[in-house]
Amino acid sequence: MTGRDGGAALVREPGAPVVILVRPQLAENIGSVARAMANGGLFDLRLVSPRDGWPQERAWRSASGADRILDAASLHDSVDAAVADLQRVFATCPRPRHIVKPVLTARGAAAEMRAVRRLGLGQGILFGPERAGLDNEDMARADALIRYPLNPEFSSLNLAQAVMIMAYEWWLSTDATPPRRLMTNETRVATKGELENFLTHLVAELDECGFLRNAPKRPGMVRNLRHLFERGEVTEQELRTLHGVVTELARGRRERT
Amino acid sequence: MTGRDGGAALVREPGAPVVILVRPQLAENIGSVARAMANGGLFDLRLVSPRDGWPQERAWRSASGADRILDAASLHDSVDAAVADLQRVFATCPRPRHIVKPVLTARGAAAEMRAVRRLGLGQGILFGPERAGLDNEDMARADALIRYPLNPEFSSLNLAQAVMIMAYEWWLSTDATPPRRLMTNETRVATKGELENFLTHLVAELDECGFLRNAPKRPGMVRNLRHLFERGEVTEQELRTLHGVVTELARGRRERT
Repeated sequence: MTGRDGGAALVREPGAPVVILVRPQLAENIGSVARAMANGGLFDLRLVSPRDGWPQERAWRSASGADRILDAASLHDSVDAAVADLQRVFATCPRPRHIVKPVLTARGAAAEMRAVRRLGLGQGILFGPERAGLDNEDMARADALIRYPLNPEFSSLNLAQAVMIMAYEWWLSTDATPPRRLMTNETRVATKGELENFLTHLVAELDECGFLRNAPKRPGMVRNLRHLFERGEVTEQELRTLHGVVTELARGRRERT
Repeated sequence: MTGRDGGAALVREPGAPVVILVRPQLAENIGSVARAMANGGLFDLRLVSPRDGWPQERAWRSASGADRILDAASLHDSVDAAVADLQRVFATCPRPRHIVKPVLTARGAAAEMRAVRRLGLGQGILFGPERAGLDNEDMARADALIRYPLNPEFSSLNLAQAVMIMAYEWWLSTDATPPRRLMTNETRVATKGELENFLTHLVAELDECGFLRNAPKRPGMVRNLRHLFERGEVTEQELRTLHGVVTELARGRRERT
């Protein structure tokens, strides 16, 4: 089951939560879980009594290269055995029943996990079997429950997607990506002076061709054109293109006169 | 393909983003996408040229009861046709290339989508085919790109999981206050169909005057013009002005010939 070259870059991050699949049914899902863990920078996978035994070739086939996670996964015959070395255990739970535990959102849980990591404690997250989810005995092993805020009218969540959301929130909880930025690989947003140059060029040509001949409306029309070009975060390269567009469109008239 | 009783509670929420799958390959993935949409309260699904045709029984089998979403899905033969009635289009893009567009995180995009909904605008999210993702022509149709903050060492993301993260963030974002909005008192943001009309007009005139005579460079130049105008949230009134600008600038040449 080893020796694939995919996922060579995957590494164990000390203190990150261990993912513990309790009685998972389908090997394909175990593979998809490994892929989702890789997406969110999680590495340690523990399997408690997988229904069809372990290892299973089909898991590697659905892992899309996250082979190292599967290669390193450990097998346990009870939840107690799987969590024995950990200090903090979370249990995902779509429908909390009569259990008195703190209940966290996925985002809240990720923040808590970062805090646990800073304390140097070992931690893990329990995910239940595909159909039934964790039972009360499983959940009794957890310090806190995690319930995702999702559509209560449709709560059937695929196992790998449940892991995906937690892995995503784990990754996000350190992320500093600004929520919005302009992608400009080979150019830069134009300066206001460059934009002004273009607007001067455009308005001169529009005066020339008579588009702005209605004197009372002229200031409003010019202002509207300005609004449009100010808003789009025009790049320096695009401005050069626009200069060319205006020049070429007007060329015929210039050559005629 | 209809008549299953699953997902009876699923309903269309006005103003929620439409999910647009561009050239999806596997019907199972389309079903899993519907399930993920249901988890996050999304309902409208549009399919652009699915590889194996549509409908496909296998999609319903993997939807875990989100049948209504599949029953109501619409089929389109191009991205242009699928976005023609929308006013704001987002494109998911794991690896942005040489494109000048705003780039949002999933969370930033969800906040933006809530703001777009409050403005009463139609909106959609493009997801590319499983293997290759969206191509440059697809992305040129978008106002903004969405890039998930996820492990850059392992960016292979399953299609349904890509939809899951966006659906989850959409569901989570209900309380967010708008990060920004477009002031449009007397007009409205143009539809993609109206924008397409203008671009067709502009390109025809640019062909006519010879601006696009360099055949190898023509597609890239046209795409750059498209990027610019897709980005600026052009209003319907501004588009009418732009039509006039192009027509009047070109008039001299037409009168001469």
